[in-house]
Amino acid sequence: MSAEIYVRNAWYVAAWNTHLPVGKPAAISVLGEPIVLYRSASGRLVALEDRCVHRLAPLSLGRCEGERLRCMYHGLLYDADGRVIEIPGQAQIAAQARVRSYAVVERHSWIWVWMGDPSLADATLIPSAVGLDDPAWVLGTGQLDYAAEARLINDNLLDFSHLPYVHAASFGAPEVFATERPITTALPRGVRFERWVVNRQRMFSKDANALVDNWSSYDFVVPGVLLMWNGSFPAGTARACNFTKPDYQQALCDVTFTSQAVTPLTENTARYFFSWGPHCAHGDEARRDLLMGIASQAFGEDKVMIEAQQRVIDRTANPQIMPTTADKGVTLYGQIVRRLIAAEATSPTKSFTPAATPA
Amino acid sequence: MSAEIYVRNAWYVAAWNTHLPVGKPAAISVLGEPIVLYRSASGRLVALEDRCVHRLAPLSLGRCEGERLRCMYHGLLYDADGRVIEIPGQAQIAAQARVRSYAVVERHSWIWVWMGDPSLADATLIPSAVGLDDPAWVLGTGQLDYAAEARLINDNLLDFSHLPYVHAASFGAPEVFATERPITTALPRGVRFERWVVNRQRMFSKDANALVDNWSSYDFVVPGVLLMWNGSFPAGTARACNFTKPDYQQALCDVTFTSQAVTPLTENTARYFFSWGPHCAHGDEARRDLLMGIASQAFGEDKVMIEAQQRVIDRTANPQIMPTTADKGVTLYGQIVRRLIAAEATSPTKSFTPAATPA
Amino acid sequence: MSAEIYVRNAWYVAAWNTHLPVGKPAAISVLGEPIVLYRSASGRLVALEDRCVHRLAPLSLGRCEGERLRCMYHGLLYDADGRVIEIPGQAQIAAQARVRSYAVVERHSWIWVWMGDPSLADATLIPSAVGLDDPAWVLGTGQLDYAAEARLINDNLLDFSHLPYVHAASFGAPEVFATERPITTALPRGVRFERWVVNRQRMFSKDANALVDNWSSYDFVVPGVLLMWNGSFPAGTARACNFTKPDYQQALCDVTFTSQAVTPLTENTARYFFSWGPHCAHGDEARRDLLMGIASQAFGEDKVMIEAQQRVIDRTANPQIMPTTADKGVTLYGQIVRRLIAAEATSPTKSFTPAATPA
Repeated sequence: MSAEIYVRNAWYVAAWNTHLPVGKPAAISVLGEPIVLYRSASGRLVALEDRCVHRLAPLSLGRCEGERLRCMYHGLLYDADGRVIEIPGQAQIAAQARVRSYAVVERHSWIWVWMGDPSLADATLIPSAVGLDDPAWVLGTGQLDYAAEARLINDNLLDFSHLPYVHAASFGAPEVFATERPITTALPRGVRFERWVVNRQRMFSKDANALVDNWSSYDFVVPGVLLMWNGSFPAGTARACNFTKPDYQQALCDVTFTSQAVTPLTENTARYFFSWGPHCAHGDEARRDLLMGIASQAFGEDKVMIEAQQRVIDRTANPQIMPTTADKGVTLYGQIVRRLIAAEATSPTKSFTPAATPA
Repeated sequence: MSAEIYVRNAWYVAAWNTHLPVGKPAAISVLGEPIVLYRSASGRLVALEDRCVHRLAPLSLGRCEGERLRCMYHGLLYDADGRVIEIPGQAQIAAQARVRSYAVVERHSWIWVWMGDPSLADATLIPSAVGLDDPAWVLGTGQLDYAAEARLINDNLLDFSHLPYVHAASFGAPEVFATERPITTALPRGVRFERWVVNRQRMFSKDANALVDNWSSYDFVVPGVLLMWNGSFPAGTARACNFTKPDYQQALCDVTFTSQAVTPLTENTARYFFSWGPHCAHGDEARRDLLMGIASQAFGEDKVMIEAQQRVIDRTANPQIMPTTADKGVTLYGQIVRRLIAAEATSPTKSFTPAATPA
Repeated sequence: MSAEIYVRNAWYVAAWNTHLPVGKPAAISVLGEPIVLYRSASGRLVALEDRCVHRLAPLSLGRCEGERLRCMYHGLLYDADGRVIEIPGQAQIAAQARVRSYAVVERHSWIWVWMGDPSLADATLIPSAVGLDDPAWVLGTGQLDYAAEARLINDNLLDFSHLPYVHAASFGAPEVFATERPITTALPRGVRFERWVVNRQRMFSKDANALVDNWSSYDFVVPGVLLMWNGSFPAGTARACNFTKPDYQQALCDVTFTSQAVTPLTENTARYFFSWGPHCAHGDEARRDLLMGIASQAFGEDKVMIEAQQRVIDRTANPQIMPTTADKGVTLYGQIVRRLIAAEATSPTKSFTPAATPA
């Protein structure tokens, strides 16, 4: 995959942690690299190159044996560092008989894999998503596979002016999402978007006459993680706090949180992980299920549009975009990504170059 | 798509007019160019490049608003000439914010799109198909998508010597279609085929003993439109009119008409539109339905053969054909197409070159 | 297809003979070359290039007429040598109007096609498979299509150390298949594998306590044919015959035979033909059906692993293998194949180069 599009020194979401029980290897590609994930008998998480050194069979068809993983083609046994430690019927094992191992961390209910220089893997760079075990939130989860490159999904999440059009039938966001621009701020590894919508009807509520001031704020950070807070406040709050960030303690209703992560699987496929739900003071499991039903519809709408966009791009000889003023966040994020990629290239510790087999 | 195969300054059938109600955009590719068709609130037909200037989303997922079409990704609004006339939240609109618009005409129940130089679009060049509203004929209709390039379907329609073989089980055409050649005449933009079959059994009739002289005549014209008349006459008529064109007023039975159009969608896919039915003096809706049942089977037989032919061509390193004397029409049509394409190249008004985005 | 991988001067299995009734043409690709097979009215087997000289329609959609085959697109008639002997409506037929014909032989219930220089086709080179009509064996049959290149299946069959892993749930082969190496011997056109497993439980038997010495021996010969004998003997037999080949007359039970053939269809697809069953003195049709049930499961396990291996290879930039000592047979077979291919290249009679159409 093209090195100029995605940051390598970053944590990518590889799976929901519930999808990785002890002893059951799972396969995923990230940035085009096939990876096998497993949770060992002791509970340790392991992420290895999913390609046996012998004849390139996928280790994800293998068998967990305690801390180790056995290739189930001809029985080579790998330890958690990717070293071959047993070849049935053979006494000597070459030192280069090993596959790449990836730094892997479980946090906020997600399994995160570091795709860059292993010596730079820094767990403090993991975005502050919210896990399902956080008692403050009542979250539902889902995931969706895209026949489209991750970058197009990122672009979508970096420009909410699409809400009144793509999601006209689901989220019911007012036109002001397209006609007015949010406050857009660069972060060290992403972009922050903040927006007041004043005198808006309560979201997904039968009480259509109750007008509120709605505040939403989200960070979209490298390598493609969205963290968003939302809350409705008594009408007048926006003006009272001079259109800056409100105190969530004052929220009237509809305080919700969503984590979303876009993982490039291959050059033209991606996986989209998401959670959403109310703060425990603002909703219960029924409210969560209502929100997740709406999200299912809405994320399906995104998928239809983005996959269609991908097909148009694929049959366009020299695809060029024509940015609008709504693209400020997209542009800003692109600059940050390019800056981080440039820094990787000049880093004294060279980025790991994945090889077909260990050199 | 290769410019050497298909004439650009020509009207291509893009749809049955019944498939384009007011306010419902429809997508089609012609010569590899994605096109969105819509019928505006006032009934005007519009054909635009199906690719938003902003981020290349397909406009065919858009929403008709009166005379206009709104891209439903980020809300850009296009007028019927392809100009962007509104970008939500943005005051200025660049002059180059426009997509190509195509000349489009509704005639003979088909929507025709002109793929070449718009300044040369000339509605008199639309082939004389017969519409469903013509009271003289009782026509049924259909369409079929091919996983094969349009040229192979054209070749098929330019050589009816395939009838006794491909359609042995359906049309029941006698062997003479293969063993004797029709009268073949060049037209300014196509080829005419005429043939008497004497002492032939009536077509699709239980009255198998009734021998007739059958006359069939068809024009196959650029860019791939077949117009065919058929009629059976009292035995002896062929000789009586010296094997030239008969007077249809003298026809005994089985006077039918069929329009067929082959539209290249992409380099290796095509759409085949067709109608068929009896003259109102020679059949009713029941006869039409009988004919359409036979046509369904027969056109399916063509599709099986031509798609199989395409697969063989695709896996042949340097595919070469070896023409027979039955290929006279194919050869003649090829010469006409090459002559028209050469004329396009030397035309003072340069053919429109579709760009990924407006220059 | 790459000429460096597969021997051309060899007999490839193209079909089970029961799949080729008189008068029904069948299509297969071998080494990427489309071939039509038919059995003529007199019972003669014919194998021709499956591509009409006229417009490249597949002859396998044609109609058998006595000894001949008619292309059912425009009616060209081919004789059994591939010559066009009739073009409807055309008096003259060019001498170069012919397709390649292949040497083809029916033996051991298989149809074998010679893919190399026709002048070297030598029926004595057909491997000694066992036909279904051999009264000594009670054989079941099957075939399986692979989305993987034939070479990977050959590799699999040349290294039975995969048995305890891939087939842990089916064949129940003990670990010794992986931890100890068989006797491996080069043959003129293949490799022989022989192995005693002593004090093994009877295979697929409820009598789990009955320990036997099991002898298995197979030849894997060009271009990808496996012929395998198996038998269980009283414990102690292996030692008594000094771990060499036993006398099958002394076998206690479980004497079976299997023929297997791997045919490369295209660069990345293959067809796998197989039979298996007991010697008539060691089992009946019920035993055969039991064995074929196990084989169905086991060969499905191979397919899962090998197709997954192919997918990993396909997305690996520069796929390299790292052989183990279990690869002795694979390596030996590769040397034999390369030697035979080199001999073909220097042969005074040049290998036939298949052309798109006759030159």
